[in-house]
Amino acid sequence: MAELVQITTADDPRLADYRDLRDVQLRRSLEAEHGLFLAEGEKVVRRAVEAGYAPRSFLMAPRWLDGLGDVLERSDAPCYVLSEALAEQVTGFHVHRGALASLVRRPLPTVDSVLADARSVLVLEDVVDHTNVGAIFRSGAALGFDAVLLAPRCADPLYRRSVKVAMGAVFGVPWTRLDDWHGALPSLSERGFTTVALTLAVDAVPVEEAVAGVDKVALVLGGEGHGLSARWEETADRRAIIPMARGREHGIDSLNVAAATAVACYVTARRA
Amino acid sequence: MAELVQITTADDPRLADYRDLRDVQLRRSLEAEHGLFLAEGEKVVRRAVEAGYAPRSFLMAPRWLDGLGDVLERSDAPCYVLSEALAEQVTGFHVHRGALASLVRRPLPTVDSVLADARSVLVLEDVVDHTNVGAIFRSGAALGFDAVLLAPRCADPLYRRSVKVAMGAVFGVPWTRLDDWHGALPSLSERGFTTVALTLAVDAVPVEEAVAGVDKVALVLGGEGHGLSARWEETADRRAIIPMARGREHGIDSLNVAAATAVACYVTARRA
Repeated sequence: MAELVQITTADDPRLADYRDLRDVQLRRSLEAEHGLFLAEGEKVVRRAVEAGYAPRSFLMAPRWLDGLGDVLERSDAPCYVLSEALAEQVTGFHVHRGALASLVRRPLPTVDSVLADARSVLVLEDVVDHTNVGAIFRSGAALGFDAVLLAPRCADPLYRRSVKVAMGAVFGVPWTRLDDWHGALPSLSERGFTTVALTLAVDAVPVEEAVAGVDKVALVLGGEGHGLSARWEETADRRAIIPMARGREHGIDSLNVAAATAVACYVTARRA
Repeated sequence: MAELVQITTADDPRLADYRDLRDVQLRRSLEAEHGLFLAEGEKVVRRAVEAGYAPRSFLMAPRWLDGLGDVLERSDAPCYVLSEALAEQVTGFHVHRGALASLVRRPLPTVDSVLADARSVLVLEDVVDHTNVGAIFRSGAALGFDAVLLAPRCADPLYRRSVKVAMGAVFGVPWTRLDDWHGALPSLSERGFTTVALTLAVDAVPVEEAVAGVDKVALVLGGEGHGLSARWEETADRRAIIPMARGREHGIDSLNVAAATAVACYVTARRA
């Protein structure tokens, strides 16, 4: 049973894991250094623990204790209990979902273990926005993708915002980092995946056509600003586009990366 | 030609339109009261002006003047020129896209004028997140939707964040507010639209099936938290679902509203 520890001042050193949650730079270095990540909200905290991540501690206002009672019951980590005003002082924002947990990161699995038995995989190049990474994990999970691979500069799926937007899908879908950016797509082809890059390139075919009849598919997505690198665009087995019906009439010639991913996952999941 | 006005102090009263852009509450009342909205970034400012919105003023650091030279050339509104540090003091954040404009809102068009000649329409109930509203406009525009109707409590498409995420699609796609929430869907049916509500209801059919063979379609979307109201769910002509391939395995049983909209727009745009 988690020990309930009443907190009375915002500068209590035991709350170090929860400081200044809106300061992205600070959080990145703090979380990397201590090998931790945060989960926010009863449902997401529960999913993290059920997925096997070990809690370092919990932090919540008294009224959230009941909802997470069973999770606290099974944990030895301390649970810091404090007023909502104090929680706001520590974290730097109003924690309206109530409960937070700090959990231990695990070593990233190998690409091979992530791909074992996978038939549909998402590969993200430089998606740098945590909201987009979270949304992509959620869509991938909902639409039946088996794994996610991230290029070295892609944003962290365990950053609080990613975790929250993903509704915890980052805990359920196997994922890891690619350490070899340059050879990433050829190495997937060698493993038997057809790599299909979403792009606005002139030789791109409609995504439905690109994935038709493909068994093991890796859907490859670029970043928010400039899309895929030339290297990845060139080394993908196929280049695919989501046909824009009449977007150009409105000056809009592309979807944002999260919307594009949702559509492409939907189409790919239903491939013949 | 816009008059260039050099600004030297952050408390210059002429900058009132640009104060504290991160304070959502303040901005809502300020913008409503003065009938203005803000556009951010060269491309979006240009689109707003080209769509016929009258600028009240522009605000930018000197290095952005060239890019918007032609827009400023054709305007009589003042352009406030200031250092990036000063712009940050005024707006409360680092304006990394450089240019801002304050523009005059227009009276909302009637539902009838928005629906004239429309074949595919999006209807949003209580989507309260500006990012989602913006993303939905962008997806709708890119995938060929002709108009957007908003329930009374749906978030403002002209709020800065919506405008930015939409990449200006809110200027190109005709939209308006529904004033009658209760009778909204029946009144669309009377106008010859088949209203198709996206829902997780048990009697929902796959969206592809729900839109097959439909000429004039209104795709109806609920809010982030609890989806559609019972009233709207009941009064829609059809209830549709985006089939979740194997999401439940990962504890994920739905897409977020922006992702769901993208998929549903894609499917609807390609209906037979």
